[in-house]
Formats: sequence, structure tokens, C-alpha cells
Amino acid sequence: MSDPRPVGVFDSGVGGLTVLREVIRRLPDEATIYLGDNARAPYGVRTDNEVLAYSTQSLDALVERDVKALVVACNTSTAVGLGAFRRRYDLPVLGVIRPGAAAASLATRNRRVGVIATPATIRSHAYFMAIKDENPAVEVYEHATPALVPLVEAGELSGPTAEATVAEALAPLIGERDADGESIFPRPPGASIDTLLLGCTHYPLLRPILARLAGEGVAIVDSATATASALVELLSVNGLEATSASGDGIEAEVPSHVQLTTGDPARFADVAGRLFGSDFPSVEPVELGALAR
Amino acid sequence: MSDPRPVGVFDSGVGGLTVLREVIRRLPDEATIYLGDNARAPYGVRTDNEVLAYSTQSLDALVERDVKALVVACNTSTAVGLGAFRRRYDLPVLGVIRPGAAAASLATRNRRVGVIATPATIRSHAYFMAIKDENPAVEVYEHATPALVPLVEAGELSGPTAEATVAEALAPLIGERDADGESIFPRPPGASIDTLLLGCTHYPLLRPILARLAGEGVAIVDSATATASALVELLSVNGLEATSASGDGIEAEVPSHVQLTTGDPARFADVAGRLFGSDFPSVEPVELGALAR
Repeated sequence: MSDPRPVGVFDSGVGGLTVLREVIRRLPDEATIYLGDNARAPYGVRTDNEVLAYSTQSLDALVERDVKALVVACNTSTAVGLGAFRRRYDLPVLGVIRPGAAAASLATRNRRVGVIATPATIRSHAYFMAIKDENPAVEVYEHATPALVPLVEAGELSGPTAEATVAEALAPLIGERDADGESIFPRPPGASIDTLLLGCTHYPLLRPILARLAGEGVAIVDSATATASALVELLSVNGLEATSASGDGIEAEVPSHVQLTTGDPARFADVAGRLFGSDFPSVEPVELGALAR
Repeated sequence: MSDPRPVGVFDSGVGGLTVLREVIRRLPDEATIYLGDNARAPYGVRTDNEVLAYSTQSLDALVERDVKALVVACNTSTAVGLGAFRRRYDLPVLGVIRPGAAAASLATRNRRVGVIATPATIRSHAYFMAIKDENPAVEVYEHATPALVPLVEAGELSGPTAEATVAEALAPLIGERDADGESIFPRPPGASIDTLLLGCTHYPLLRPILARLAGEGVAIVDSATATASALVELLSVNGLEATSASGDGIEAEVPSHVQLTTGDPARFADVAGRLFGSDFPSVEPVELGALAR
């Protein structure tokens, strides 16, 4: 049994490419279609109704292209609409929040997990709830870090500006750290976390800085990696993989990877290339019918 | 390490006693305190704000009695307030929905699960979401069965009336069945489910009839049993058990079991005794401050 249909991956913009990157790395035989709704990004400042309407339009476009599963690689969209999407589509729909929460609850030893995300995601308490669902005894310290997405979108992934911005963003959660990553008093409530969950798809691009600032004793868990793992499991458990595990001796086709954007393809390719390297595949424009803004 | 504090179990009435029964069976060394808010039951017809307020008052009363963990053994209360309870209390809080959903998603082989529950629970789609979170490829058929709680509360757990009422309640989900439990055409959409999740704490008392009507090919999963299993895991993983696993050679005290009700203790003992046998322990009244109705 083999299902060659592509996996659809949706995000409001380029952040979900961290999920796509992990999906392609973990599942090299799977074709993918990525859709970034860049024309209406970011979703974090939209009303719930707008997020629902825009996301549904985008996901409809992926479903029309005969995907076998949908990955909602956008925290805001997952927090607001996952239930609605699952009722709308007769397809498996995977969000980014629960996989990240499950990975964090497994990673922690002292049962103290910190979560950083955009203000909209933190306000939804979606990660708090999902971690408590995994293990209600885990203490969850939620902290909004609004400065990090602009940093990533500006391409500032290393250097003094990035270091200083990330340090300032993390301080209320983990406190100031010395050169060895040891906490300097006074310690804020989250200072003793042993696991930091990156609850935004942009944040894995800042992982080296985040890991250094959090210190050696803190495990970094990101939703992008966790969601790719959950997708591996989803396809395997449900017999939706592109190639059979037994191997039928037939050379598999190289899977295709399509990138769609509602915005300017050249700009998308530019940002994506800057963030993920110059070998970024071609980007096509997509029309979503009457494109409300 | 041993934590002798009791586990608090809360329900709007007597239904949660199916959860308590499983907890005591699975964890014979654990002390328990059960609180039934019978004076204000059933919660299914209340507004969300009422359910939140009444539940919080009840859970506060358990927390004041120094419990080490809270089990919300009420589907309505779990669906409406679990997040709020987890933010309010610095204690592990376990609901009944996710454990049942996880068990059902593991039990199904054909990835088709039926869920029966009260109208309020079905409307919340809480089981739908929780099952999809476990495996987004599982198809979930939700069906409200309002006739079953009154049946249980009337003590009609067997006999022709119970059989007929349950058969009529299940028909829209699984269709009519012949004597061997085989489906008779026309088959409704849920007729090919291989797993039936009992999404109400009253329903395990009707399990023999439900199992016979659903037929041999359908696994019955109930939230009461699943929640007790989740509690075993919770206490174990977090080192909250009453006795250490190593065994310290000291004879453990017989754990105490306290039943509290906001209603009439004699009536509570009567109903509970009828449903669970005559060896039901004594019931104490509890005052919840200004008892809004």
C-alpha cells in the first residue's frame, strides 16, 4: 500500500517553513504542498473570525489539490480553528500545539516547563492546557515574547542585536544568566524550568541563541520538530505513507514540493531563501477567490 | 516516599461514583473524598457560568480538605471548566474526557469510533476534539442519548424497559441489530464503528445492555475506567502514591473513604446503595458557603 498524494502544510506566512523543513527531512519520500497566506499575515493581530475565514480559504485550496493530510503549521490558526477544520474536512488534520506539548511533557524531569510564544498564542492558554492534558502535575510557565517574530522576519538570526533581543525577551521567564547559563538572583518563578518549549514556528530559527541563553540544564523542545514526528506517526499508523515499508523494488519517483503564496512570490522566495538557504525551490502565486483583507 | 493525602473526586451528583468505584478498585491504598453537588444537579441544563461557579465552589471544598489531586468526574464540568480549574489550583487536576478519548483511539482497529453522551457534552464536541488529538485519522460519530441518565437514576439497569430504551437510544448510531448483534439494513453512518465510547459517568451502569446491543464486534470503552487508569499513571509518574513501590515493611493504614453531598445524605446513600450495592459507606452533608441555586 502506498499513497502518493502530497501532504498539505499551511501557515499564515513563512514561519511554517520550519515545520515543512522537518517534514521533508523526516519523510523524504513524501510530496508536499506548502501554502503561505502572506497577503494577510500576520494572523496574530486578526480577530478569531478573520483567522477562521482566512485559514479555511487557504486549507480549502490545499484540499482542492488532493492532499492526503493537512498540517496547520500556524499556532494562531491551530489555537483558534483546529476543531472547526477537523469538522470541515474528511481528512486527518494535525495542529502544531499538541505535538509540542506532548514532547515537552516527556522531556521535563523536574516537571517545570516554560513556554514562549506570541501574545495571541499565550493568551489562548492552548499550550498550558495541552501540557496539563499530558500530565496535570507539570507546572507550566507561559511567557509572551513579541519581539522574536520581527527579529526572525528581519533575518537577524545571530549577532549582538539578536543576542540582546532574545536575552531581554527571556529574562522575565528565566532571569539573567551568567556566562555558564547559571541563573543570577533574584530568580523569577520560571527560573527553575528544565524544559523550554518554543511555541511559535519562527522560533526554531533562533534555537542556537535560545539554547545558549537558557543554559545547559534546559532542554529545548520545538513544535516544528514535534509536529513532524507526529506526522510520521500519523501516516504510519493509518497506512497513508507514500511508499510501503516492505519495499517493492520499484524505484520511487522523486517527490515534488510545491510552494504557494497569496502574496508576492519573489518576496516569499527572498525571505525563505534568506532564512533557509539559497536552494529554496520555486514559489508560485495562488488566488483564493475573493481575497478578503 | 509516600503521600497519604486523599484523592478528591467531584461530580454534580451520583454518576461520578462509577469513577470512584474504579479508583478504589485500582488504587486500594489511596484514601478518597467524594463530593456530589446533588443540591444543584444535573449540571447539563445549567449555563456555562453556573457550571463554572458551582464546580469551583465544590472543588474549593475538596482542596480545603487537603487533597493531593482532583478528579473532575463530571463530563459537563470537564468540558466547561477544566482549563479554569487547572489555572486556579496548584494541584494536578484530571478530567474524564481525555482519558476516555485516548482509550477509544487505542481500542479502535477500523478507525471508526462512536461516542454517546448527554446533549450538553455532545454539543461541546469535547470528545470529538480529544479523539482527533490522539489520532486525527479516526472518524468520530457523536450521538446524544438523553434518555439514559434518567433511566439510570430511576434504577432501571436491566429488564425490558431498560433494553427497549437503550435500543431506541442507540439505533440512530448503530442501526437496528439482529439477535447476534449484526446490523440490519439500512445502516446509519456509524453502523460500522468498532468502538463505542461511553461519554457519561452514568453509562457504565448500563454497560451489559450496551455491549449486547452493540454486538460482539464493538469494543466498549468507558471514561470511568479510563480515568482511573489515568489517575494510576498520574500518581505513579509524579511520586504521589500513598505507599512507596519499594515496600517499607510497615503495615499501611486502611485508607479512609469520605462521601460528601450538598443534597440530602439519606437520599444520596439510598440512590448510591441501589446503584452500587448495599455496602455503600456513610454519607455526610457539606455546606458550600452561600449555596446559590
